[in-house]
Amino acid sequence: MTPSPQYAPGSVSIIERDGERDWVAVEEPLEIRVDDEAIAVTMRTPGNDEELALGFLYGERLIDAARPVGLTDDLAANTVVVEGPLLRELPTRRFYTTSSCGVCGKGAIEQIVVAPRALARDWTGVPLTRELLAGLPEDLIQPGFARTGGLHATGLFSGAGELLCVREDVGRHNAMDKVVGWALAEGLGEEGAGPLTGSLLCVSGRLSFELVQKAVVAGAPVLVGVGAPSSLAISLARECGLTLGGFARGGRLNVYSGAERIS
Amino acid sequence: MTPSPQYAPGSVSIIERDGERDWVAVEEPLEIRVDDEAIAVTMRTPGNDEELALGFLYGERLIDAARPVGLTDDLAANTVVVEGPLLRELPTRRFYTTSSCGVCGKGAIEQIVVAPRALARDWTGVPLTRELLAGLPEDLIQPGFARTGGLHATGLFSGAGELLCVREDVGRHNAMDKVVGWALAEGLGEEGAGPLTGSLLCVSGRLSFELVQKAVVAGAPVLVGVGAPSSLAISLARECGLTLGGFARGGRLNVYSGAERIS
Repeated sequence: MTPSPQYAPGSVSIIERDGERDWVAVEEPLEIRVDDEAIAVTMRTPGNDEELALGFLYGERLIDAARPVGLTDDLAANTVVVEGPLLRELPTRRFYTTSSCGVCGKGAIEQIVVAPRALARDWTGVPLTRELLAGLPEDLIQPGFARTGGLHATGLFSGAGELLCVREDVGRHNAMDKVVGWALAEGLGEEGAGPLTGSLLCVSGRLSFELVQKAVVAGAPVLVGVGAPSSLAISLARECGLTLGGFARGGRLNVYSGAERIS
Repeated sequence: MTPSPQYAPGSVSIIERDGERDWVAVEEPLEIRVDDEAIAVTMRTPGNDEELALGFLYGERLIDAARPVGLTDDLAANTVVVEGPLLRELPTRRFYTTSSCGVCGKGAIEQIVVAPRALARDWTGVPLTRELLAGLPEDLIQPGFARTGGLHATGLFSGAGELLCVREDVGRHNAMDKVVGWALAEGLGEEGAGPLTGSLLCVSGRLSFELVQKAVVAGAPVLVGVGAPSSLAISLARECGLTLGGFARGGRLNVYSGAERIS
């Protein structure tokens, strides 16, 4: 099967192991540059790098849909160059560290939250059922994971549960950034309300604060994960009105926030 | 069972969900300050914060065992204040992002590698067998994970396979930093060769570049994971002479590097 662009598999490579050939997920650094300045390095799975850069910048509120930026992708050099201008000054951060990254390098706790938006509480799409949300992971196409066991996936679904786009990456935040970048490039969503308005997000793993934040900033009303949510992920979801579901396995789903969208 | 300090469980909290009470892993920001400057914020599971700060600083080669630093931990304020001096100037990084973090905020690709050490190739401990390494995950005590499904774990074992210390955290790099910090505080290892010299590391999840780097910097000769390694994790392990094993499940183990230590 030749995958369509919406279902781009994560890059894998062949290694020798125990005298046999084996597949592994590719991890390489990507440097995101704005004009002449390197603003970020992410350890990512190569491919869809421009989407990754777009989604990253959007999640940090450095760009919006109404003011797109030019991008030049150099896969061989592992760089994406962004041609500004950006919406705001670049923050200076020192260092890193977070559970799945995303708030890395921020030099003070107050800087962690990227001004979240309050999501519209009313759901105007097809009525959502617990069964539909619980079943989303079954439709996540993960060819790279199937070969390597080493990739996370984020899927974007229509409000009716049709798969629109899947991205795989060694970093779960990168997979989500790529999906947000894809939606931006496709012109999805409503002006001013985010590219994921009216869409459903599903991730293959756990639900951290950072993933909830990216979902909310992009305007997604629903985020479902196969794994567990953290305490802070639940708090932010409740504050912003995101429908947050975890442990989506075997047709079951725990709903931690925003149950009012589910009929 | 009251856990001994070596086996500190990750913090969990109770939430309401679907009208019932449920346990979730706690995720909160920790700010690491040096004198008056915030140098890092990590999303971590509270507890053992001083170990986390020590291990983080050691992994970045900002401290060493011969020159310890003072730490003041304020759990309520989510801060650890480090009383310098550090071994080198703080790098200025912009932003973040990586698969499980750890190279976040670094402003150029060259800055990713924190001068790794070449590990001593000879193994002077009890002969290692594939069975011993494959069985390490079974001895990882994970009470927080058992309750929440939302925590990673890193375990430190003696060269003979006895469990020395386990730490749980929403961030896998934090769990490893805490273990390295514990070993530093306990005075383990050989002077100049790192606190994990002669010890075995085992992690509950995947094996990223970052985890291999932290293991190598701390002098660990062996790193075993339940999950898959990335391409770059394997490359760095081979370059530095680390024994890297993945998919440690059901008594089996894939060995990607450093098989010469296994008899």
